[in-house]
Amino acid sequence: MYGKRMKGEIIAIGNELTSGRIANTTSGFAARQLFEAGYEIHAMHTIGDSPSLIGEALKRAIDSVDFVIVTGGLGPTDDDLTNEAVSVALNRPTMPNPEILSLIRAHLDEISCSPVSPLEKLAWLPVGAEALNPQGKMAGYQLIHDNKPIFFLPGVPRQTEKLLTDHVLPRLATWYPGSRLSTCRRLFKIFDMSEMEVNARIATLNLADDVAIGYYPVFPEVHLSLIIRDIRGNNPEPLFRNACTVVNTLLGDVIYGHDQESMELVVGSLLRNTGSTVAMAESCTGGLISHKITTIPGSSDYFLGGVTSYSNAMKINYLHVDQALIESKGAVSAEVAKAMAEGIRTGTNADIGLSVTGIAGPDGGTEEKPVGTVFFGLATAEHCRVWPFKFSGSREQIQEITAFTGLNLIRKYLLKKSGRTTSS
Amino acid sequence: MYGKRMKGEIIAIGNELTSGRIANTTSGFAARQLFEAGYEIHAMHTIGDSPSLIGEALKRAIDSVDFVIVTGGLGPTDDDLTNEAVSVALNRPTMPNPEILSLIRAHLDEISCSPVSPLEKLAWLPVGAEALNPQGKMAGYQLIHDNKPIFFLPGVPRQTEKLLTDHVLPRLATWYPGSRLSTCRRLFKIFDMSEMEVNARIATLNLADDVAIGYYPVFPEVHLSLIIRDIRGNNPEPLFRNACTVVNTLLGDVIYGHDQESMELVVGSLLRNTGSTVAMAESCTGGLISHKITTIPGSSDYFLGGVTSYSNAMKINYLHVDQALIESKGAVSAEVAKAMAEGIRTGTNADIGLSVTGIAGPDGGTEEKPVGTVFFGLATAEHCRVWPFKFSGSREQIQEITAFTGLNLIRKYLLKKSGRTTSS
Repeated sequence: MYGKRMKGEIIAIGNELTSGRIANTTSGFAARQLFEAGYEIHAMHTIGDSPSLIGEALKRAIDSVDFVIVTGGLGPTDDDLTNEAVSVALNRPTMPNPEILSLIRAHLDEISCSPVSPLEKLAWLPVGAEALNPQGKMAGYQLIHDNKPIFFLPGVPRQTEKLLTDHVLPRLATWYPGSRLSTCRRLFKIFDMSEMEVNARIATLNLADDVAIGYYPVFPEVHLSLIIRDIRGNNPEPLFRNACTVVNTLLGDVIYGHDQESMELVVGSLLRNTGSTVAMAESCTGGLISHKITTIPGSSDYFLGGVTSYSNAMKINYLHVDQALIESKGAVSAEVAKAMAEGIRTGTNADIGLSVTGIAGPDGGTEEKPVGTVFFGLATAEHCRVWPFKFSGSREQIQEITAFTGLNLIRKYLLKKSGRTTSS
Repeated sequence: MYGKRMKGEIIAIGNELTSGRIANTTSGFAARQLFEAGYEIHAMHTIGDSPSLIGEALKRAIDSVDFVIVTGGLGPTDDDLTNEAVSVALNRPTMPNPEILSLIRAHLDEISCSPVSPLEKLAWLPVGAEALNPQGKMAGYQLIHDNKPIFFLPGVPRQTEKLLTDHVLPRLATWYPGSRLSTCRRLFKIFDMSEMEVNARIATLNLADDVAIGYYPVFPEVHLSLIIRDIRGNNPEPLFRNACTVVNTLLGDVIYGHDQESMELVVGSLLRNTGSTVAMAESCTGGLISHKITTIPGSSDYFLGGVTSYSNAMKINYLHVDQALIESKGAVSAEVAKAMAEGIRTGTNADIGLSVTGIAGPDGGTEEKPVGTVFFGLATAEHCRVWPFKFSGSREQIQEITAFTGLNLIRKYLLKKSGRTTSS
């Protein structure tokens, strides 16, 4: 069986999901865990609390794949209909499961509750059900049907996630030993290059068929996912390492990070590693750049602080921008961006002062300076550079891409300073 | 047809979804919009980039329901396979759609791009496709198959959400006129009261069976959803209005807003309506409160700016906090919070100065001041109040609930000042 892909389906049950009131996070969590453990998810379904639809989906899944995971509808209230649906669809009458019933009774006894509690409904399970977690209070269960394991888990995200990790994955590994694919996976995080341009550069590669590449715009970034699995039973590591090197070389500095790395984490690490401190003077981003930097634990080691100068008076009084300069050039101008960056740097004694002034919209634009016009300044002890940008999108998007661009300017400055890049 | 429920299915496509790498948010958004417009979602499916699986799911959906919405796989890159799958499954060859092709060529011309661009792939659509948004650059399309409308939308959440609201819902309403259930729905947004306490207060109500109430913790808030549908053909409006009044009365001021209102929008409206200006002095939130306020268009009318004092030097030099006070009481203390609030208020001449200083963690806590210890100061011309709080959770959660609490303190101050509440 080595190298065969074991396929599964995930079925999530609940009217709160099909009416869009609650976001279904458990299916995605389960898919990620299963993918990383070497299985493949064929499809994920979300279905309301309807026994006939649940039964249909379950039977179809059992016919198509090697294992099925069902979440939701196991609780004690009247709208929990999964067990009833399973019973009818798989022709397995529900009976009190002695193991689970005794657990529930012990629990009821412990909390001095009436022995005939609605909680006892939890023990009425389709014949053949086996508790996933016989020690725990709230247990999902497993059925073996048509020689395939079917797992039933509660819909509550934390419980489902724990049962999945601690009980479902080990049982699957025992049921299908040696059948998991070893998987190599890397996410390349790209800023300042369009999805199409990334695609065009990578398309020139002659990659092996086993290499799966995906492109995903995740505003304001582009993510490139590279996945290799040992489909023919070969160790994918050497091929994977080679492909990663090629992608890194072809894209270069527009890759700001990999996998779980965020832009603020990468910038924070560069600041820490170069022993540099930074301070911000923000106008149109309203503090977003500072906030992003401070999401990283320990950022007080390199981030001194910032001024959100949302009024001209604050630019003048807190950043020492010349009032006459604001009047002659406008608050949104290269000259004011330069003065803001220099003002915050000298005021805080930081190694780097970054400033941003712009028009986030939706109002406030002019013909000369439309919405999306943004100027950045980056001041150091040696010099102060200024960049004009023109972004588009909603107010929220302009604020987000402006913050990202500001962080990226710090990143590129520090890469260049530390000699880790040749481009400017 | 009045009162008949029109049923739909949603199919989301992409390996990034079935491998759990990207959370599928568009299906839930679509389900909510459709539910609110009076339709019912029968099932939601998520499928990888496999033409055969996509085709199967599409055919099955067309057989089961009245309309289908398909998202994802329409882009210009090599892994976008939806059109190919639709073409085979529905036996409709792909051809360049003249309407869309001319739009793309006009766009390419505008940006001076080569006329044979990968973007032209976007125009190769199954025969019968009609652009959803013939004026826009990125368009989804509609097919009428077996006399049922099928909508194909890109996977990018923002584009999908906009096309859904602006083009899919109006087309559905035309296609199935008068068939929607009239639905009354209100979301009550609650801060500073636990889900269980909200539940306990509302449970004393004797609401009609047609009234559906749901409780959802959405960190750091609690949302209460109230839904009434005209299942028996009666106008639900009077019952709905009555239920809303009762909920508002029972919960009072802990309801900060309804439906789409955010805390920063509510606070912004109060500042505007009372003619008040505000300035921030933030430590542990790193600019998050300022940023939240500035997400609202026009916020420069009442928000003057802020200082993110992430170092003691900034507290001293920019907020005029006494160095000796920091040394004796600590940067995280009621006394420093008070001095920060007064410092930013007098420095900016704002009506309200709000300060926050605390320990967001995961490190930096002490026995006396553990992680999650936060002090707020609110200074006005008349007085300065200080509040100590103790939050728990991750760094991100502590920053978020701190920002929310800071905004809520401004809200409560302004409500009291304008005589709109009796509680303190």
